[in-house]
Amino acid sequence: MAAKVGIINVTGYAGSELARLLHTHPGVKLVSVTGRSGAGQRLGDIFPHLADIDLPVEPDLASVDFAFSALPHGASAEAILPLFRAGVRVVDISADFRLNDAAEYQQWYGVEHPAPQLLSGAVYGLTELTRQQVHSATIVANPGCYPTSAILALAPALKAGLIQPDIIVDSKSGISGAGRSLGLAYHFSEANENVSAYALDGHRHLPEIAQELGKLTPEGQRPAITFLPHLIPMTRGILSSCYARLVEGRIPLNEQGRQRIRELYREFYRSEPFVRVVDKPPQTKQTLGSNLCIIHPTIDMRTGRLVVISCLDNLVKGAAGQAIQNMNLMLGLPETMGLEGVAVYP
Amino acid sequence: MAAKVGIINVTGYAGSELARLLHTHPGVKLVSVTGRSGAGQRLGDIFPHLADIDLPVEPDLASVDFAFSALPHGASAEAILPLFRAGVRVVDISADFRLNDAAEYQQWYGVEHPAPQLLSGAVYGLTELTRQQVHSATIVANPGCYPTSAILALAPALKAGLIQPDIIVDSKSGISGAGRSLGLAYHFSEANENVSAYALDGHRHLPEIAQELGKLTPEGQRPAITFLPHLIPMTRGILSSCYARLVEGRIPLNEQGRQRIRELYREFYRSEPFVRVVDKPPQTKQTLGSNLCIIHPTIDMRTGRLVVISCLDNLVKGAAGQAIQNMNLMLGLPETMGLEGVAVYP
Amino acid sequence: MAAKVGIINVTGYAGSELARLLHTHPGVKLVSVTGRSGAGQRLGDIFPHLADIDLPVEPDLASVDFAFSALPHGASAEAILPLFRAGVRVVDISADFRLNDAAEYQQWYGVEHPAPQLLSGAVYGLTELTRQQVHSATIVANPGCYPTSAILALAPALKAGLIQPDIIVDSKSGISGAGRSLGLAYHFSEANENVSAYALDGHRHLPEIAQELGKLTPEGQRPAITFLPHLIPMTRGILSSCYARLVEGRIPLNEQGRQRIRELYREFYRSEPFVRVVDKPPQTKQTLGSNLCIIHPTIDMRTGRLVVISCLDNLVKGAAGQAIQNMNLMLGLPETMGLEGVAVYP
Amino acid sequence: MAAKVGIINVTGYAGSELARLLHTHPGVKLVSVTGRSGAGQRLGDIFPHLADIDLPVEPDLASVDFAFSALPHGASAEAILPLFRAGVRVVDISADFRLNDAAEYQQWYGVEHPAPQLLSGAVYGLTELTRQQVHSATIVANPGCYPTSAILALAPALKAGLIQPDIIVDSKSGISGAGRSLGLAYHFSEANENVSAYALDGHRHLPEIAQELGKLTPEGQRPAITFLPHLIPMTRGILSSCYARLVEGRIPLNEQGRQRIRELYREFYRSEPFVRVVDKPPQTKQTLGSNLCIIHPTIDMRTGRLVVISCLDNLVKGAAGQAIQNMNLMLGLPETMGLEGVAVYP
Repeated sequence: MAAKVGIINVTGYAGSELARLLHTHPGVKLVSVTGRSGAGQRLGDIFPHLADIDLPVEPDLASVDFAFSALPHGASAEAILPLFRAGVRVVDISADFRLNDAAEYQQWYGVEHPAPQLLSGAVYGLTELTRQQVHSATIVANPGCYPTSAILALAPALKAGLIQPDIIVDSKSGISGAGRSLGLAYHFSEANENVSAYALDGHRHLPEIAQELGKLTPEGQRPAITFLPHLIPMTRGILSSCYARLVEGRIPLNEQGRQRIRELYREFYRSEPFVRVVDKPPQTKQTLGSNLCIIHPTIDMRTGRLVVISCLDNLVKGAAGQAIQNMNLMLGLPETMGLEGVAVYP
Repeated sequence: MAAKVGIINVTGYAGSELARLLHTHPGVKLVSVTGRSGAGQRLGDIFPHLADIDLPVEPDLASVDFAFSALPHGASAEAILPLFRAGVRVVDISADFRLNDAAEYQQWYGVEHPAPQLLSGAVYGLTELTRQQVHSATIVANPGCYPTSAILALAPALKAGLIQPDIIVDSKSGISGAGRSLGLAYHFSEANENVSAYALDGHRHLPEIAQELGKLTPEGQRPAITFLPHLIPMTRGILSSCYARLVEGRIPLNEQGRQRIRELYREFYRSEPFVRVVDKPPQTKQTLGSNLCIIHPTIDMRTGRLVVISCLDNLVKGAAGQAIQNMNLMLGLPETMGLEGVAVYP
Repeated sequence: MAAKVGIINVTGYAGSELARLLHTHPGVKLVSVTGRSGAGQRLGDIFPHLADIDLPVEPDLASVDFAFSALPHGASAEAILPLFRAGVRVVDISADFRLNDAAEYQQWYGVEHPAPQLLSGAVYGLTELTRQQVHSATIVANPGCYPTSAILALAPALKAGLIQPDIIVDSKSGISGAGRSLGLAYHFSEANENVSAYALDGHRHLPEIAQELGKLTPEGQRPAITFLPHLIPMTRGILSSCYARLVEGRIPLNEQGRQRIRELYREFYRSEPFVRVVDKPPQTKQTLGSNLCIIHPTIDMRTGRLVVISCLDNLVKGAAGQAIQNMNLMLGLPETMGLEGVAVYP
Repeated sequence: MAAKVGIINVTGYAGSELARLLHTHPGVKLVSVTGRSGAGQRLGDIFPHLADIDLPVEPDLASVDFAFSALPHGASAEAILPLFRAGVRVVDISADFRLNDAAEYQQWYGVEHPAPQLLSGAVYGLTELTRQQVHSATIVANPGCYPTSAILALAPALKAGLIQPDIIVDSKSGISGAGRSLGLAYHFSEANENVSAYALDGHRHLPEIAQELGKLTPEGQRPAITFLPHLIPMTRGILSSCYARLVEGRIPLNEQGRQRIRELYREFYRSEPFVRVVDKPPQTKQTLGSNLCIIHPTIDMRTGRLVVISCLDNLVKGAAGQAIQNMNLMLGLPETMGLEGVAVYP
């Protein structure tokens, strides 16, 4: 019998995308959704595209076998605590369980962690790198959209010791990454025909990237990372351009070296259904609506740098799709179930 | 066993959208695709988003149980002729079998019809209006994207005799409707931040709208129609605003009249899985990637006009999704099979 | 010596566009700007593109020879009243002085008119049609963006008695028309890749269109008008498609008739520097940033309808540029002064 | 008397932008334009927004005092040669005179340089850095759009010896940078809602950046540069994010260090009318249609890197506006003449 699943705070973009994907998922049944706003309305009143899902938006989650939380940070951990106590397994889309260290969480998010005792048991759910732990976890922290693109882009090279631990990640994101809450920077007339860098003092996704990449380095030391996100005038999609100097003498700076890098990446992701290593620079449009992360590693021969381009749909592989991939594993379902759709192009 | 299906000329947007939707269709198997360009390449070389479909682009179609043609008009009828003789049923995405009258075809398309003898047997596949005929047809002419939005918007009122047969259809289309072939009007820098009307002398979709709406009028006479399409800076989606004067005395020009119109529309489309009659003006974004047509009829009380807004995804309900809906019927499959996905929003 | 001018409420899009255009206007000097928000800041702090204009945003207007009000309706008339008493001439960008009838104003805007005694003296400043009155007016009501496109499109035909007084205006607007205030419908992720109709119960610009077109009909009667505005995913620009049945027997329904219509339009606008009658359908991109309204009249021969396409930049000819055109006349400056720039293309 | 100027190959985006800006330039008169395509037509037939400029597109340039060439590379040098011999001064928008070394030109552009004897006399016209030479030059090579953004962003730091000569420039460009020629990558349906990196093997603007930055380093050595351009879905604008490690011990890695960097940049560009150093990250929209380059230098304190964001309008400061700035100098006109317009926002 299909597991009954629920979504806490369905009323943002990550929440509604979860509902979209769960609606056609053959292995589970979406039975309850809550909303910070909109309680009392039908789901289809708030999101007309979800009118086929005949559910009310409730103030509190009904009894479920499995839950997703799409609450903002802080509120999410608070909502997950009682579920945890009740033995309900959860994928948390917020940042609350991503950082292992409660002090670092407080430093970046400006609030004390609401449930530090749960941090050590939570698993960072970038499935490709932590599949075994996700399988048996009770709380899975779903990675941020930027970190997913950056970590998958850099993991193979970093683990193989091919690059120096001094990295630049220049990311370009569609505006849905900023969520459904209003703001002048996301007002159409301001964001359209415009591009800008933001969070130059440090984006909250930076410690997450450093923490996870640090686990892959030989000595477990965090690499130095400059991470700079940009807003570009499109709705969905992230493309990250990653730069790091190659360790001298490991890879020849020629076409053969490029081939070796690509083989190494292909080998690293050989069995991964949602990571594709490609020979040509990828485009975010190739991932729209799908759970794919496409990666193109190459070498800048003039400077001896590894350059890796990665892209994904920030609301799917960067949020809801990744969350379902984690859920599938946690429930013992095939990892790709409900995520087989290819990108909507053009 | 799943029927083997093929796509003739997969290399345009309608063709690639067919491939996307057929890839996850549980009732058929896509086994062969052809291309006017690109023959010899893998499908994934031309369309990276379709890399999971491991098929070569062939010069000629392999043996199939069912075929779609996404060739341009003229070429399509020529390619369908041998399939027809071989007993292969076909949905034709081109315009070749939409007009019942070969002379009218020649007038609008500028070429003699390549297979006029097949016209009388072909069925205009706007499934909602011609379900019975589609079921047993050998050749189904898939409707144009604009006509689908216009005919579904006007059919209930016209059939009920509520409006005068003098209609204006003002349509706004995303630019994928113009296809994948290059043209200055579709060059990003020209089309972006721009809107324009085109085909003011008469668009080829006009006779199709008039022909099908004519079948619904009491005396079978074609209504007078001014149809004006516009290009707007988005990729997918059509929104049609339809205007017609109400026959006097049939519907009161007040809120009650609006309710009656909406009930009439709801009744007309009661059992239709892909038509939704709504109380608020719909938006194309509510249909992106889905096979839905959303319709909002209302009354302009000051002038006594019926105003109907309809919208759809021009590549799904306006092309590939409609074609699969027809195929499902023709193959005796559930009509919604493979088309259950909701819109990708935002 | 250059006249000293001021802008009341510079902090919206119409206000900032006024500042942009006045900055390079050789005949006047912008000396004071006020803001409902932002008082105390420098203009360049709020609008970095205006950093070259070294002015503070003040709570109240300094002493000026001439003023623009870009306040919302209601507040605008209140702010203009003391200026009027002080003998300062004003162009009002709000709707407060557009409707001649205080009762009609109250019906559409939901508030009592703050200064009904000034209505009879105010002039509707669509310069092309009311040049003489604008010249000597004390208060000029700057037309709405939609009405400018609709009235200029229909005036020649209506005045010549060529069309029946039963008109449809289907307008497509960029999203800056909705202003700088936040709203979910104008949130980038919602408005991008989307098109929708709105105000189906009647848009506030409708009475203005009817009032001004009514002045042009032989008997001064208002035509019946269905006006339907649409939001499309671009920042600036309005394109209006206008439909009306030709009075029978006046214009032949053939190519010659089209030529005659175009000649009539050309004759009507012969001396107008900011109206261009063209032989091909125009595009909003041809007007971006300029004070031009481009008009293409044609005949739908099949139905005997006049179809007129007009387009303009909603913030220039539809707001700030029109206001400066009026100011130029009122100050005795050349009408085109400061408005000579051609469109920014592409 | 105003100098008579001409444009060779007006039919691309750089050419038409030159015409737009020259039309309102009070110090020169545009008297002749040529086109590789379109000869025989009126300028307004090809570019409706330029209909006010009443000039034919001619096969050959009429007699002029000054010329711009907007031809593609190779053809441009060939067309300039006879002008040079005739003593006509020229700003060349193509790449033909940007690289000092004919062999390097051949390496990057794949053709032998058509006029290598002129290279040593040509001046790289990034006015801010080469004002004196531009003043007296006969041939000025107008910089590429990407190099303008990169060189202006890095020049102050590099000249002051604050950064190591190992630089990453990650640039995001609107699609007009690819020109008016058609290509699938610039087809609206492909480029919209999409972002991609390109030219990963080395973009032709790279040697130009390295050459000009090399002139600023203490020993005149070229820095190692990784330059990666990206296409983003907007028409105009370039934003470059530049990264370089600070030389240790020169600038403290704290807020005070940031202030010092900004002061140094402000000092460097103190008298420049078209470069603005700002305290907040700039946005391309702040430059649309204007000749401004906005620069924001900051320090990534965690990694000790200088990060500089620069932005401009690729067709103005990145092409036509820069060319006119150079022309003004060459003709002894005020450098800002005809370029005073502020950005078109929003």
